[in-house]
Amino acid sequence: MNISYPNFSFDITHVDPVSGARTGVITTPHGQVPTPNYIFCGTKASIKNLSPAHMREAGTDIMLSNTYHLMIQPGADIVQKMGGLQAFTGWRGPMLTDSGGFQVFSMGHGSCADEIKGRNTKKKENLIRIDETGAYFRSYMDGRQMCLNPEISMEVQRKLGADLVVQMDECTAYQVTKDYTAKSMEMSMRWGDRSLAAFEKTHDGTQALYGVVQGGVYEDLRITSADYVAGRPFFGTAIGGCLGGSDHEMYGILEWIRSRNHAARPIHFLGIGRMKDVFEGVKYGIDTFDCVMPTRIARHGMALMKGVKGERINLLNARFRDDPEPLDPSLEIPFSRDYSKAYIHHLLKAGEMLAYQILSQHNVAVINRLMRDVRSAIQSGTLESLRKEYLPE
Amino acid sequence: MNISYPNFSFDITHVDPVSGARTGVITTPHGQVPTPNYIFCGTKASIKNLSPAHMREAGTDIMLSNTYHLMIQPGADIVQKMGGLQAFTGWRGPMLTDSGGFQVFSMGHGSCADEIKGRNTKKKENLIRIDETGAYFRSYMDGRQMCLNPEISMEVQRKLGADLVVQMDECTAYQVTKDYTAKSMEMSMRWGDRSLAAFEKTHDGTQALYGVVQGGVYEDLRITSADYVAGRPFFGTAIGGCLGGSDHEMYGILEWIRSRNHAARPIHFLGIGRMKDVFEGVKYGIDTFDCVMPTRIARHGMALMKGVKGERINLLNARFRDDPEPLDPSLEIPFSRDYSKAYIHHLLKAGEMLAYQILSQHNVAVINRLMRDVRSAIQSGTLESLRKEYLPE
Repeated sequence: MNISYPNFSFDITHVDPVSGARTGVITTPHGQVPTPNYIFCGTKASIKNLSPAHMREAGTDIMLSNTYHLMIQPGADIVQKMGGLQAFTGWRGPMLTDSGGFQVFSMGHGSCADEIKGRNTKKKENLIRIDETGAYFRSYMDGRQMCLNPEISMEVQRKLGADLVVQMDECTAYQVTKDYTAKSMEMSMRWGDRSLAAFEKTHDGTQALYGVVQGGVYEDLRITSADYVAGRPFFGTAIGGCLGGSDHEMYGILEWIRSRNHAARPIHFLGIGRMKDVFEGVKYGIDTFDCVMPTRIARHGMALMKGVKGERINLLNARFRDDPEPLDPSLEIPFSRDYSKAYIHHLLKAGEMLAYQILSQHNVAVINRLMRDVRSAIQSGTLESLRKEYLPE
Repeated sequence: MNISYPNFSFDITHVDPVSGARTGVITTPHGQVPTPNYIFCGTKASIKNLSPAHMREAGTDIMLSNTYHLMIQPGADIVQKMGGLQAFTGWRGPMLTDSGGFQVFSMGHGSCADEIKGRNTKKKENLIRIDETGAYFRSYMDGRQMCLNPEISMEVQRKLGADLVVQMDECTAYQVTKDYTAKSMEMSMRWGDRSLAAFEKTHDGTQALYGVVQGGVYEDLRITSADYVAGRPFFGTAIGGCLGGSDHEMYGILEWIRSRNHAARPIHFLGIGRMKDVFEGVKYGIDTFDCVMPTRIARHGMALMKGVKGERINLLNARFRDDPEPLDPSLEIPFSRDYSKAYIHHLLKAGEMLAYQILSQHNVAVINRLMRDVRSAIQSGTLESLRKEYLPE
């Protein structure tokens, strides 16, 4: 099987011989994405609390939406009828949709974050079963039975119309056995082939497909999976699945597969995106990151800050109640420049939604500046000193 | 007692001999307000779900905040320390604060709306007592005992720093007796004199004071109260209190006092502002309206529409799920022009906050256009045909 992506390209513009990080440009029908970059999560076809105008103003290059959520509400047919995700949402730039596989995992096992933090997770009741044919579950909106499998995921993603799409996979949990992880990874490879076949059938040059590297925390499985993805005609490589219980373990996994990933293809790190992950991840060749973190922590009153220990401050803290300083005027967006921390603190205390707009856009702008700075630093060989500037010990 | 307002003026530019409506301009230190106009409610120093940039884009001239809420959170001292409401909120145009009296009423009796709709209201537990000296209540934030009286209201409003401020009054409920209403109105007049005295003490030309006409649904009381306000050195007249249980009763009250209001002063109608109230109110000389309605109904999925029976549509209605049309492209703001009703319907169904931004700004823009159109129609003597255009039978 061979699939070509004539309207897409990935051009590597520089590789830093010291850090191993690289810069590049992903070209899509909706525009270019300089890499490394950050894909912001508009789960249900909207970045929480922000409009596309806010996203543009904050310097955003690319966004994603979640297949699982959109097939439940409003349904792929509605999005297609409205002209696809870009027309539907008003975000006219590059977009990615995931396969829905991660949510299948979440329904079945609880999330990695739950495990790491020792939260008591019980099996969600919406999942009916997962087997070779696909995942069967109930809509959380109206309880109707639904199915997600490689063919359906490709069809739904085709209708949603994002530029970058992802093969159907199963994402295994940390606590499952190696035997389960191996069997699941093998199924994900078979699902990869089914995804490629389904993708090819309706391929019209408007979308490009990523394969997903699974294999959990097991070196041999990760290598098998990475070799599979590199050997199939995917446009890009996504690294998924459970990445262990510590940063050390996560970066160990990236190290195992670093030399097995297809070097000429863009590499996406699924669901990971703290500032420190960006600085670490790019050294393993990661080109794009995504995480709900920037907008999720905003809803808890947190502002990402450059040069602050722990990457963030909590605006609910009483020390901000009469702080006249803005969040960061150097970002040159009104929300980060024109509003005092005292005002944001007040809005949070008063339960005013404007606080979440301000903090969400600020956090997006901080991350976008981080990515711009990281790209410059890779090109100038100054990544390590930039890291110290952003993340003091 | 005489108080002058050298930095303020109200210039009547036209009186329509047919409808009785008038146009004018209120000049304040923070800019001019062409009248008739609409004062949007930023209760806790924020228009719910909208930024000052959204408000400007929607053509807003003036906003208000509530003294009662701000004295509880963040406290007037914090707002003053941050440079006053305009600097604190980033809204650099004209502002009004109310006296806090309405909330005292709400705490004691439940709202007029509750009564009209037959809702079972129980006395809120935060109110401790109201007597001649003032209103005593507990903060809903931390339970501490607080007091609002004419002197405190003037001091708090001075610290908040809005251009237009309002005398302390008690707002009576529909179900109270005439005797109670009369005694309350007399107290409000004494509170008016105390407000004037307190206002004069620190008067530095940056603020202008409105008196409030009370007297409930009783003609003689309304006339006594209107004569009181007209005879004292207030800058403007606000019409408050319970306005009855029907539109007919409300407009009857406006008719009683129409000739008693000081004709050279701006007249504000407290808390009233459906489209039909605007068309009716201007005929009784009302210059400014305020109501939480435009942003409140947005949070229930409602969009104000010109030329639609009932003034609004409910975007949650299933008929909008695949409606590709925008709300109203003629408003020329992105939220009303660039987003399909299908997308807004989806956002509402999915619980995405962006829906409330879109609908809130749209509704503000609809009202601001209404006020522009009303001003033009008064000048050209076409108010009645404009009303038919906006409000078909």
